[in-house]
Amino acid sequence: MLYMHYPSHLTKLIELLKRLPGVGSKTAERFAFEMLAWSPGILEEIGTVIASLPEKIACCPQCGCLMHEAHCPFCDQSRRDVSIMCVVATARDAFSMERTREYRGLYHVLGGMLSPLDGHGPEGLSVPALVRRMQELQVKELIIALDSTLEGDATALYLKQQLEPLAIRTSRLAFGLPMGSSLDYVDGDTLARSLSGRRSF
Amino acid sequence: MLYMHYPSHLTKLIELLKRLPGVGSKTAERFAFEMLAWSPGILEEIGTVIASLPEKIACCPQCGCLMHEAHCPFCDQSRRDVSIMCVVATARDAFSMERTREYRGLYHVLGGMLSPLDGHGPEGLSVPALVRRMQELQVKELIIALDSTLEGDATALYLKQQLEPLAIRTSRLAFGLPMGSSLDYVDGDTLARSLSGRRSF
Repeated sequence: MLYMHYPSHLTKLIELLKRLPGVGSKTAERFAFEMLAWSPGILEEIGTVIASLPEKIACCPQCGCLMHEAHCPFCDQSRRDVSIMCVVATARDAFSMERTREYRGLYHVLGGMLSPLDGHGPEGLSVPALVRRMQELQVKELIIALDSTLEGDATALYLKQQLEPLAIRTSRLAFGLPMGSSLDYVDGDTLARSLSGRRSF
Repeated sequence: MLYMHYPSHLTKLIELLKRLPGVGSKTAERFAFEMLAWSPGILEEIGTVIASLPEKIACCPQCGCLMHEAHCPFCDQSRRDVSIMCVVATARDAFSMERTREYRGLYHVLGGMLSPLDGHGPEGLSVPALVRRMQELQVKELIIALDSTLEGDATALYLKQQLEPLAIRTSRLAFGLPMGSSLDYVDGDTLARSLSGRRSF
């Protein structure tokens, strides 16, 4: 005896929801059944918001950050310090940097990180555009704000090599203990990096 | 200095995604940024599928299960055993029961469980409809397939009281060790229930 399947429309929704990061069959089913209980108004709203993402949200052709209605606040030279440039992997990372409230320079979104195993080579990174912008804007300092992962390390190293001819002061975010952590919970790699990066006190 | 906010359209999407179960701000942001990388075609498709849920998927007015295009396969008397009825809390639970491939009777979706602390009283449960269907269909046996939680226990007890006048054989799903579990990992409550429910062997 064949057991009962979900209605095909629901199956379609579940398959689409499985595209979300970290969402497997079980979670997608949970999401789909939850949505069945939402009001038609809310479903209509979220459906429209999702379908209109491409026309509503665009990336700045210069820096790669998300624009606010055809205007890129990250590139606004009247409000930002153009002598300093921060390289991030994704548009989202620029928002993380903004949240520190400590940085008010420019951004450049690389569009990813080097990851040979996943087939992501240097051709996918907007390094030529970065070099061009640094020269045009006469940037004085570069901050590499990439993840503290293998991919981040490889990409930072590659950037350093590529930007060497510009002879610009370049730094990378510090590695060490996250705030509020205690030594007995921190992993060995982090502790080792925070030891080698120790600062006079 | 005010830090940069997400574009308003993205903020709206994030707020809507936070309605999904177990999805907080961080996960909703992750989902939203992932969606930004999807093709317009996929976004259009998922948007349409979500917005058309109410018109595409309906609950059977009899049993409360999900219908397949105006037809309820769960109520199909030519294929189901009408002498036995299984009470479940949600339409989703009926699919879980189907997956066992061991049950081919009818279903009745209660529409929730008793939970006084959350303000869910008996008036939210479709018990009168259950009683009416049991009498009309002359059901011989009732299986209560509710969660093994406090709410499930309270609801099962309430059902038992309400259905007592019908004098029908009533059972509840067995409690005990889940398949593949070892005693040292199983919690005390489960072990206690599986002890009190032990069967001759």
